[in-house]
Amino acid sequence: MIILRQNVRAMTREMEIICVGNELLIGKTLNTNAQWLSKQATALGITVKRITVVADDVNEIANIVRETLRRKPRFIITTGGLGPTFDDKTLEGVAKSLKRKLAINEKALKMVSEKYEAYARKNRIKAVELTPPRIKMATLPEKAEPIPNPVGTAPGVQLDLEETMLIVLPGVPSEMESIFDETVEGMLKQESGKGAFYEKSIYAEGVMESSLAPIIYKVMQNNPDVYIKSHPKGRESRSYIEIHVSITARESEKSEDKLQKVIMQLSSAIGKIGGKVVVDELS
Amino acid sequence: MIILRQNVRAMTREMEIICVGNELLIGKTLNTNAQWLSKQATALGITVKRITVVADDVNEIANIVRETLRRKPRFIITTGGLGPTFDDKTLEGVAKSLKRKLAINEKALKMVSEKYEAYARKNRIKAVELTPPRIKMATLPEKAEPIPNPVGTAPGVQLDLEETMLIVLPGVPSEMESIFDETVEGMLKQESGKGAFYEKSIYAEGVMESSLAPIIYKVMQNNPDVYIKSHPKGRESRSYIEIHVSITARESEKSEDKLQKVIMQLSSAIGKIGGKVVVDELS
Repeated sequence: MIILRQNVRAMTREMEIICVGNELLIGKTLNTNAQWLSKQATALGITVKRITVVADDVNEIANIVRETLRRKPRFIITTGGLGPTFDDKTLEGVAKSLKRKLAINEKALKMVSEKYEAYARKNRIKAVELTPPRIKMATLPEKAEPIPNPVGTAPGVQLDLEETMLIVLPGVPSEMESIFDETVEGMLKQESGKGAFYEKSIYAEGVMESSLAPIIYKVMQNNPDVYIKSHPKGRESRSYIEIHVSITARESEKSEDKLQKVIMQLSSAIGKIGGKVVVDELS
Repeated sequence: MIILRQNVRAMTREMEIICVGNELLIGKTLNTNAQWLSKQATALGITVKRITVVADDVNEIANIVRETLRRKPRFIITTGGLGPTFDDKTLEGVAKSLKRKLAINEKALKMVSEKYEAYARKNRIKAVELTPPRIKMATLPEKAEPIPNPVGTAPGVQLDLEETMLIVLPGVPSEMESIFDETVEGMLKQESGKGAFYEKSIYAEGVMESSLAPIIYKVMQNNPDVYIKSHPKGRESRSYIEIHVSITARESEKSEDKLQKVIMQLSSAIGKIGGKVVVDELS
């Protein structure tokens, strides 16, 4: 199976996600950003290979960026650590990992100062001063490009490296998502070709996961480009198992048919051992 | 600030969390396990240094375990990949990373077969055969110890390595949590000493995060063992910011007082620049 999976992978572009933030490591915040980005990338036919969470620490950030670049994914997306406070250290960490200097980026400074001008107008106050914490958000590694932030102040950042496009996004979900939707998705689409991800779940009652194991194995052998994974819900002895069937493909036409065929093979085999298959999730 | 943080860290035990599962990398499943474990470990005074998510692939698992061991955290906890299906590959990956053989563990086999005997009794069927997928759940790396699973079939696994205790848990949240509560928490407590984590949030209105930045910096300089992080909620211009104050300490007595002192310093400084501080989260 591993070999067959690797064939699929070789066809697709790979991505790693790096999330920066102590709040994720102390369990204060649920990492919805990683799930959201994984879902978007997967839908574009990109294979997310790893997600790593590290602390707000320059060395930790520099280390993980360096390690990840060594694995040469086509894309790296980072989230978090772009704001004005002292512990927003992602750009410093990225610069360190690349051995590049940090410098005020004029394009980014224009983006940031326009945000504060709009804020001043809106609140009818005099111009907001560009203090060091504010200028920090426009201080990028050399040769970086700022990406407009439609809903917040700190721009996203893009770095075209030798084999990897590194995209640095804020951690506030609304900002991260809107930068992705407005700009990043287009970049990824251009690079990832016409790939797409197709998936469907069915639900099996009255069988144990250990009884499904040989069935899933056999159906996957007969359908090498389809991936099947069982997810027991609650205890195994409750005998209610989600079976998730998916395919990542360049050409879309036949993928839906393939999924349907696999679901019929699974349903038939599960029926033979006394299980019942339903299409909607049990409640 | 980095140096001050490292002083705190040196006092505490470190942990890394590894989550195995394609469902996390395609964005199908939100990684609640990582948050739950981080919260538990942090409450015990342990510092979670990294969380990594990898695919259901023997080489990916072996690589991340090897890399993580090289960083020598006191604890590694993995989740996922312990079930009966072909794509439950965590123990194979762990064995590969340690260059140990996999073999049927008699203690684990007893745990697994007792689960199926109970299932047979409950469902009034004849004995459930110990098929290869079922025996697989009792096939552990050499010198591993199984940990009882109070609510599921696959035992957890403990490996005492040179500098690291490696704990392998299932991915189904109810199983992972109950193994942790029943057995793992005790192991960690014994090792992590009397450390604990104290935290409190306040909420600031009417100030921008970029105006808070120098205040937070200054208060942290005056209180080196306290960590302060601002979390903008929504857009920065909406001016509603959570300020999370935390301390990891061996001795508990003075920690609450320290947090209170820091909150008063923050509130006073924020008041001076025209902001308002509230203790309860705004809705």
